[in-house]
Amino acid sequence: MMENVLKPMDAEQLREHAHQMVDFIADYYKNIETFPVLSQVQPGYLRDLLPDSAPNCPESLQEVLDDVRLKIIPGVTHWQSPNYYAYFPSNSSTAGFLGEMLSAGLNIVGFSWISSPAATELEMIVLDWLAKMLKLPEHFLSLGKGGGVIQGTASEAVLVVLLAARDKVLRRLGKKSTGKLVVYSSDQAHAALQKACQIAGILPANYRLLKTDSSTNFALSPDAVSKAIFDDSQAGLIPFFLCATVGTTSSTAVDPLSALGKIAKENDMWFHVDAAYAGSACICPEYRHYIDGVEEADSFNMNAHKWFLTNSDCSALWVKDQSALIQSLSTNPEYLKNKASQANTVVDYKDWQIPLGRRFRSLRLWMVMRLYGLKNLQSYIRGHIKLAIQFEELVVADPRFEVVVPRTFSLVWFRLLPPQDDEDNGYRLNYSLLESVNASGKLFMSHTVLSGKFILRFAVGAPLTEEKHVREAWTLLQDKATTLLGKQ
Amino acid sequence: MMENVLKPMDAEQLREHAHQMVDFIADYYKNIETFPVLSQVQPGYLRDLLPDSAPNCPESLQEVLDDVRLKIIPGVTHWQSPNYYAYFPSNSSTAGFLGEMLSAGLNIVGFSWISSPAATELEMIVLDWLAKMLKLPEHFLSLGKGGGVIQGTASEAVLVVLLAARDKVLRRLGKKSTGKLVVYSSDQAHAALQKACQIAGILPANYRLLKTDSSTNFALSPDAVSKAIFDDSQAGLIPFFLCATVGTTSSTAVDPLSALGKIAKENDMWFHVDAAYAGSACICPEYRHYIDGVEEADSFNMNAHKWFLTNSDCSALWVKDQSALIQSLSTNPEYLKNKASQANTVVDYKDWQIPLGRRFRSLRLWMVMRLYGLKNLQSYIRGHIKLAIQFEELVVADPRFEVVVPRTFSLVWFRLLPPQDDEDNGYRLNYSLLESVNASGKLFMSHTVLSGKFILRFAVGAPLTEEKHVREAWTLLQDKATTLLGKQ
Repeated sequence: MMENVLKPMDAEQLREHAHQMVDFIADYYKNIETFPVLSQVQPGYLRDLLPDSAPNCPESLQEVLDDVRLKIIPGVTHWQSPNYYAYFPSNSSTAGFLGEMLSAGLNIVGFSWISSPAATELEMIVLDWLAKMLKLPEHFLSLGKGGGVIQGTASEAVLVVLLAARDKVLRRLGKKSTGKLVVYSSDQAHAALQKACQIAGILPANYRLLKTDSSTNFALSPDAVSKAIFDDSQAGLIPFFLCATVGTTSSTAVDPLSALGKIAKENDMWFHVDAAYAGSACICPEYRHYIDGVEEADSFNMNAHKWFLTNSDCSALWVKDQSALIQSLSTNPEYLKNKASQANTVVDYKDWQIPLGRRFRSLRLWMVMRLYGLKNLQSYIRGHIKLAIQFEELVVADPRFEVVVPRTFSLVWFRLLPPQDDEDNGYRLNYSLLESVNASGKLFMSHTVLSGKFILRFAVGAPLTEEKHVREAWTLLQDKATTLLGKQ
Repeated sequence: MMENVLKPMDAEQLREHAHQMVDFIADYYKNIETFPVLSQVQPGYLRDLLPDSAPNCPESLQEVLDDVRLKIIPGVTHWQSPNYYAYFPSNSSTAGFLGEMLSAGLNIVGFSWISSPAATELEMIVLDWLAKMLKLPEHFLSLGKGGGVIQGTASEAVLVVLLAARDKVLRRLGKKSTGKLVVYSSDQAHAALQKACQIAGILPANYRLLKTDSSTNFALSPDAVSKAIFDDSQAGLIPFFLCATVGTTSSTAVDPLSALGKIAKENDMWFHVDAAYAGSACICPEYRHYIDGVEEADSFNMNAHKWFLTNSDCSALWVKDQSALIQSLSTNPEYLKNKASQANTVVDYKDWQIPLGRRFRSLRLWMVMRLYGLKNLQSYIRGHIKLAIQFEELVVADPRFEVVVPRTFSLVWFRLLPPQDDEDNGYRLNYSLLESVNASGKLFMSHTVLSGKFILRFAVGAPLTEEKHVREAWTLLQDKATTLLGKQ
C-alpha cells in the first residue's frame, strides 16, 4: 500500500477527512435553497451515472464528494430545505448532527447494559427528562416498573407494544386464541398499526378501523369504540388493544384520550397513544392539554426525529409495565450472558425492541436538550405554529380556496374550490395544483384524501423555515392556481 | 435570544461546532488505548452524575464535551479499541464515519423512491456491487425479480423473510394453518431466529433447534433436517422455513448450504442463509467456498456493520423474490401515494422492511467500497484471519490451554484445561479467567458454552488491532492463568 492510502481507521486521517466533510455539509446547508426541493430525476437515473461494480483500488474523498455533488444531490429530495412542507417534518439540527457524529464516532453496540453502560443509562435518563418536559405520569419514568426506550420509528414502537399486549392476553388464554384478538383504532390511525397487526398475526378481519368524519374533526368517537367492543365481545371475540392518535397523519386529529382510556381499562385492554408528530408540541403548557388523559395509557410514543430537532432516528416510547415488553421480546443466549444481566440489576434494551443491535441514539437527544434548553425548544415549536397560523390566514383571505380542516398544530389543510359542476369535486384540479407546485422545485408538499376530497397538506416544521418562505410558498400556490383556473 | 445562541440550524454554526466535534472524535481514537476496554462502572453510576431534568436555558458545546469526557466515556465499552475481542466486531472506519456524517447531514427519509430517489437507487446499486463482490447468484441482483435491501440488523433481516415465508404459505392454506407451521435450524442458530418466530406467532413447540455436536464442528446435519421434516409432515405439520448459518455466533460453524438448500427445495420451504459475521470473508476467493450452495437460497444476509468497515447499522439482505416481501410488508395509505409508486416503476423500500422511516444508509457502504476498494477490503479480512491464526498458534503452544473448536475465520475458541478431578469441568476456572482479564481493562473478551464446556471466545476484528495487541492479549491471559492456577 502507498503511504497516503486510507487506513481502515487512523485518528489523523479521520481528522483530516472529517474536517473536509464538515465543510461539505456546512456548504450544503448554505446552498440548500438553490436545489429543487423535490428531486426532479426520473426513475433509474443513477444507474447510468455509476459503474456496474465497486472499484478494485481506492478512490479519493474528493472523487466521492464530486460524485455526491453531481450525481447524488440531484436525486435528493431536500427534507431540510426551508421550502419543505411535505408529509411530516424530519428535523436535522446543529445539536442533533453533533450528537450523531459522536454516536457514529464511538460506534458502540448497546444491546445490553454491559456492552456500554453509558448508552443504556443515558437513554433512561434522557427519556426521563423528556417525560418530565411532557409532564407524563410518573409510572412512565424509569425508577419504577415502567420506563422509556428509543425505538427507530413509530412503526416499531406500535409493533412492540402490540406484541406485548398480544402475548399478555395469550399467556392467559393460550396461543390458540390468536384468531379471536381484536384491535381498535380510528380510520385515521397510521398505516403502521395495520402493518403491525399483519406482522403479529392478528386476522385482518379483526382490525377495526372505526369510521370518523368532519363532525368530530376526524377524531375517534368513544361511543363508536364502546359499541364495537360490545358487539365483538358478544360475538365471542377478544378486544385487547386500543390505539389512540394525537395528531393523525391526514388531519392531525386528536382522539379523546381520557374517554378512550377509561373504555380500555374497563375492558382490560392495552391502551397505546401515538403522538408521533404532535407529541413535541406538548412541551408547551398551552398545548399540553392535547395529551390530557395520557395517565390512562399503557404506552405513549412521540418521534423526537420529527419536530424535536433530533436527527433520525429517535422514536421515544414509554411503557407503564416494562415486564410486558420483556416477556415478549427477551432472549438470553449463553453468548450474551453477563454478571450484571444475570443479577437483574440492569436494563438490557435488547429485550425492549425487535433488533438485537442498537446505536447510541440517546446522545443526539441529550445534546438537543442541552444545547437548546427547554425554552428554545418551546420557542421553536411556537414559531412553526405561528407560521402555520399565518399561512392559514392567507388561505382564508383568498376566496378561491378553502381551509378544509381546522388547524390544530403546524399543519394546514386546504384546497382550491372546484367549479360548482366539477365532476370529481375538485380532485383533478387540486391534484394538478400539487403536481405543478412540486414540479417547480420551489417547494414540496404532499396531499391526503378526506371524505372524498383531495386535499393539499402544508406542513410547517423544517428548522430553516421563516415567514418569508411561507409567504413565497403562498404566492407560488396562488400563481399556479391562477394559471390552472385560467386553463379551465 | 442572544446573538451567540445556537439556532436550530445554521450553516456557519454547524461548521464551527462540527469542526470542534471532529477534533474531539479524532482525539478519542488517538487516546483509545488509554481507556479500560470494558467499562468498569457500576450499575446506576450515571444517574448521580447528571441532573434530574433537562436545562431550561442552553448550555455550550464545551460543557457537553466536558461531560462526555468525564461522565460518558467512563461508561463506554470501547468496541473500536484494538484490544476489543468480545462478541463479534462492529467496525467503525474513516470511510464509514464520513458516510454517516453525510447521511446525518442530508437527513432525508427514504421510505419511498420519491422521498429521495438517490437513497433508493444508490442502495440498489451498492447492494448489487456487494453481491458481485460475494459472487452471489444473479437472481439476487436488482435488475430481475430479486434484489438487495439494507436492514438495520440481522434480527430484522431474518424476521422479514420469516414473515414473507409465513404469509406465502398462509395465502395458500389460510391463516388458520399458522399453528402448524414449523421452522428448522441448528441449535447454534442465532437467538434472533427464535425471537422472530415468537413475533411471527410460530408456536414455540414448532421451532426445531436441531442438535449439533463436535462431530460436525457444530454444523447442521442434512440427515437430521430431513428426518425432522419427514416426521413433522407425517404428523400433519407444515415445514416451511429452514435457516442455515455460515459462521455461527458460538463457534463460527458453517452449515452445508448445498445439501440443505436441496432439502428445502424438495419440501417447498423458504431457505434463508444467515452469514451475518462470516459473509464479509467471502469477498476473498479463498473463503468464497463457505457460501457455495447459496444459489439454492431464497434469501441471504450479511452485516456490513460487523466486519466490513461500515459503521452501524448496515445489514445487507438479498432476496430472490421481492414480491414475497412486499406482499407481507406493504402499506399504501393515501398520504404516501405518488405517481412513481402508483405506476409501479420504482422500488419503495418501506415495503421491504418493518419500519416506515429509513435513513440514507447506503452512503456509508458506498463510501467504504470506494475509499478502500476491493483489494484493501480483502487485505483487511486477511489481516484479521492471520492474527487469529497467530493467536491460535500461541494457545496451542501452551500446554495449559486447549483450542476447543478448530478456527475457521478470525475467531479462536479456547479454554484453560481444568485439573483432572475438577468438579465442573473447568467452568469456574475459565469463568474466573474471563472475569479477571476483563476486569483488568486491558482487553475485553466474551464467552460461550459448547457441549457443557465454558469457552473463551477471542474475536479478532477491530480495525485498529495489530499483531502487538494480540501478543499482549495472550501474555495477559497467560499471566492471569498462572495466578489462577497458583491459587488452586
